Amino acid sequence: MTFDPTKHSHCRYNPLKDEWILVSPQRLSRPWQGQVHDDKNDADDDDENNNNNQQSTNPLCPGAIRGKTNERNPFYEHTYVFDNDFPALLSDISDDQNDNNNDDLFRCHVARGVCKVICFHPNSKLTLPRMTLDDITYVIKTWIDVYRDLANKYQWVQIFENRGEIMGCSNPHPHCQVWATDFLPNEARIKHRTQKDYFKKHNGNVLLLDYIKRELNDFKKERIVIDNEYWIVIVPYWATWPYETMLLPKRHILRLSDLTNDEQIGLCQIMKQLLIKYDNLFNTSFPYSMGWHGAPTGSFNNEDCSHWQLHALYYPPLVRSATIKKFMVGYEMLAQAQRDITPEYAAQSLRNLSGEIHYKDKKN
Amino acid sequence: MTFDPTKHSHCRYNPLKDEWILVSPQRLSRPWQGQVHDDKNDADDDDENNNNNQQSTNPLCPGAIRGKTNERNPFYEHTYVFDNDFPALLSDISDDQNDNNNDDLFRCHVARGVCKVICFHPNSKLTLPRMTLDDITYVIKTWIDVYRDLANKYQWVQIFENRGEIMGCSNPHPHCQVWATDFLPNEARIKHRTQKDYFKKHNGNVLLLDYIKRELNDFKKERIVIDNEYWIVIVPYWATWPYETMLLPKRHILRLSDLTNDEQIGLCQIMKQLLIKYDNLFNTSFPYSMGWHGAPTGSFNNEDCSHWQLHALYYPPLVRSATIKKFMVGYEMLAQAQRDITPEYAAQSLRNLSGEIHYKDKKN
Ligand SMILES: O=P(O)(O)O[C@H]1O[C@H](CO)[C@@H](O)[C@H](O)[C@H]1O
Ligand SMILES: O=P(O)(O)O[C@H]1O[C@H](CO)[C@@H](O)[C@H](O)[C@H]1O
Repeated sequence: MTFDPTKHSHCRYNPLKDEWILVSPQRLSRPWQGQVHDDKNDADDDDENNNNNQQSTNPLCPGAIRGKTNERNPFYEHTYVFDNDFPALLSDISDDQNDNNNDDLFRCHVARGVCKVICFHPNSKLTLPRMTLDDITYVIKTWIDVYRDLANKYQWVQIFENRGEIMGCSNPHPHCQVWATDFLPNEARIKHRTQKDYFKKHNGNVLLLDYIKRELNDFKKERIVIDNEYWIVIVPYWATWPYETMLLPKRHILRLSDLTNDEQIGLCQIMKQLLIKYDNLFNTSFPYSMGWHGAPTGSFNNEDCSHWQLHALYYPPLVRSATIKKFMVGYEMLAQAQRDITPEYAAQSLRNLSGEIHYKDKKN
Repeated sequence: MTFDPTKHSHCRYNPLKDEWILVSPQRLSRPWQGQVHDDKNDADDDDENNNNNQQSTNPLCPGAIRGKTNERNPFYEHTYVFDNDFPALLSDISDDQNDNNNDDLFRCHVARGVCKVICFHPNSKLTLPRMTLDDITYVIKTWIDVYRDLANKYQWVQIFENRGEIMGCSNPHPHCQVWATDFLPNEARIKHRTQKDYFKKHNGNVLLLDYIKRELNDFKKERIVIDNEYWIVIVPYWATWPYETMLLPKRHILRLSDLTNDEQIGLCQIMKQLLIKYDNLFNTSFPYSMGWHGAPTGSFNNEDCSHWQLHALYYPPLVRSATIKKFMVGYEMLAQAQRDITPEYAAQSLRNLSGEIHYKDKKN
C-alpha cells in the first residue's frame, strides 16, 4: 500500500505543543464495542466460577469466532495472543512520499506498527488480582515473549491494559493490548530525553534508581506502598492521578525482556498484592490504565540506553468511592494537571490496606 | 500563612516528563458537588423558560445562599463573578522557605493564585448557544473585565468552561471558571516557547497567523468550519479530540483585553454559530472543555510577547453520538494521543451543519 493520509495510519505534529498525534483513519470501519455490552457480562460482577455460555459470544473467549475475520479462537488454557482485528496501526504502508517533515506547520509521517491483544485467562469473570500466582506468571511470560518478538523490529513496544468501562475498556474479558511502532511516541521520546539529561548531569547515575534510593532513605518511606526483594511500588512525589503508582525493579534493568526468573516471580507476587489493595480501597474492581515503559528497542538495541530504568505505571481515575472519579478537564486540559489528595496521603491509604485478602474473599 | 505543603497549594515537578502538577491539599474539605445533582436540574433538559424554584437551591443562582460562607448572591440580571468557595489556589501564602528548586528529583514551589466563578446568566436552563447575542456580549465583556483585572497581578489568567457532566461539570448552571496563577502552567510555558522559537526562526512571523494564512490559501479550506470578518474557526491539522476546534482572531492580537468593540461583537456571533453547530451535530447539549490562551501577563506585560496569538480551544469528547465519547486512556496516557476520524472529516461535518437554527428551535 502506498501511503495515503486519508486511509492509512500516520502521525501529525502539533507545533504549539511540540508533540504528535496518531491518526488512524482505517479504524473508521470498526464496529463500536465499548459501552454497549450488557452489564451482566462485566468481569467480576458475578462469581468467577460462573463462566457459563458467555464463552461463545465474547470474541475474546476460547473457541469464540471473531466477527471480522471469521477466525475461531483456540480453546486456550492460559493466555492467548492475536492481532487486533481493527488495528490503529498498519504495518505494510510503503514509501513516505507524502511525508512532509520539513514543513513547520503541516508536518506528518507514516505510522507503521502492529496492534496485538493478549487475553490473560480463559475465564471472562476473572481479573488479575483474583488469579492464582501461576495464572499471573503466564501473563508475565506472555508479555515478555510478545515484547521480545516485537522489540527486534520496532522502536517502541507499548504494553498497556485498560481495565473497567470507565477507562474505555471495550470488552470485560481480562486482556491487555500491545501497540508496537516504528517511531517513539511522545511519552517515550520525552522520557528518553529526561533520563539521558539526568544521566549526563549526574555522572552516569540513573534517575529512577536515585529516586528509589532517596524514597527509601530520606523520607521515612512515606510514599512507598509495598516492596519485596526485587520490586518496589511508590506513589511518585509527582503523581498526577489520585492513586497513581509506579512499580519498578530495585536493580538497574532496561527492559522487560531482561528480567530473571526470580524477578518474574517477585513481579507476580507484588502485582497481585498491589491489585488486591486497589480493589480493597473502594471495595470495587478498581479501574485503571496501566502500562510498561523501558528502554526503546529496534535500532535502539544497538545504542547505549543505560540511562533508562524499566517501570510500570498505574493510572486509576477513582478518587473518593467506586463511582466518583477525578476529571482531568478544563484547567487540566488547558493549563496543568491538578490534584487534591496528596501523594503521601494516597500512599498511606494503600499501605494500610490488605494486599493478601481480596474483599470478595473476606469471611464476614 | 507560612507555606506548608501538607496544607497549601503548590506545584511539584515530574522529572520524567519535564512538567508540573498542581497539588491543592486545602481542597480536601470541599463537599462533593459533581455527579450527585438531580438529572432534572440539568441545563437544557427542559425548556429554558421553565426556570422555576430551582433558583433557591443552586448556589450559582441569583439570590441563592452559598453554603460555605453563608453569602447571598445578588439578584443578578446578566453575569455574576465571585471567588470560588473551595479554591484550588491560595493567594496569601508567604515565604518559599520550603521550596526546593535545586533538587532534581523532589522539586516543588508554592502555587499562589485565585479561583473565580463567572455565572453567564441568571437562568440555570440556558446554555450559551441559546442565549441572545446580547446575553453573550455580557459574557465576553465579563471575561475581559476579569481578565484585565487579574492580568495586572498574575502571570497567567486561565479562563475555562467545563460544560456537561461528562466533562466533570459539577453544576449545570451556565458558568465558567478563572484560575489565575503567579507561575506559567505547563501548557502556557510550552506554547510560550514554541511560538517564540517559530518567531525567531521565521524572522518575526507569528506561528498561528502563518497557520491561518496557509489554511485559507493552500488547502481548499478543508479544515475551516466557519469564519467572519474578524474571526476564524478551524479544526487544527493536529487536532487531538474528534471535533476539537480552535477559534482565533484573523488580526495579530496578543490578549483578550486587546479586542476592539467590533471584534467583541464578531466573537459573539461566531461563538453562537459554532456552539449551535456543536449542539446540532448529535442533537444534544454538546459537552466540552474550552478555554482561552493568550500572551502571559503579570511581569510579562513589560516584555515583548509579539510571538503570541490569542486563541480559544474547544475540546469536546463525543465521537459518534450523544453518548459515545472518545476515551483518552491506555495508549493515549502512556504513549501518544490517537484519533480515528480525520480532522478534515470533522471539519466537513461541522461546516455542513446549520449554525443559525438550534435543533431545539427547528419546526418539524
Ligand atoms: O471546580 P469544579 O467544576 O468542581 O471541578 C472540575 O473542574 C476542575 C478544573 O478543571 C477540575 O480540576 C475538576 O476535576 C473538575 O471536576
Ligand atoms: O482498543 P479499545 O480497547 O477498543 O479502545 C480503547 O483503548 C484505546 C487505546 O488506549 C483507545 O484509543 C480507545 O479510545 C479506547 O476506547
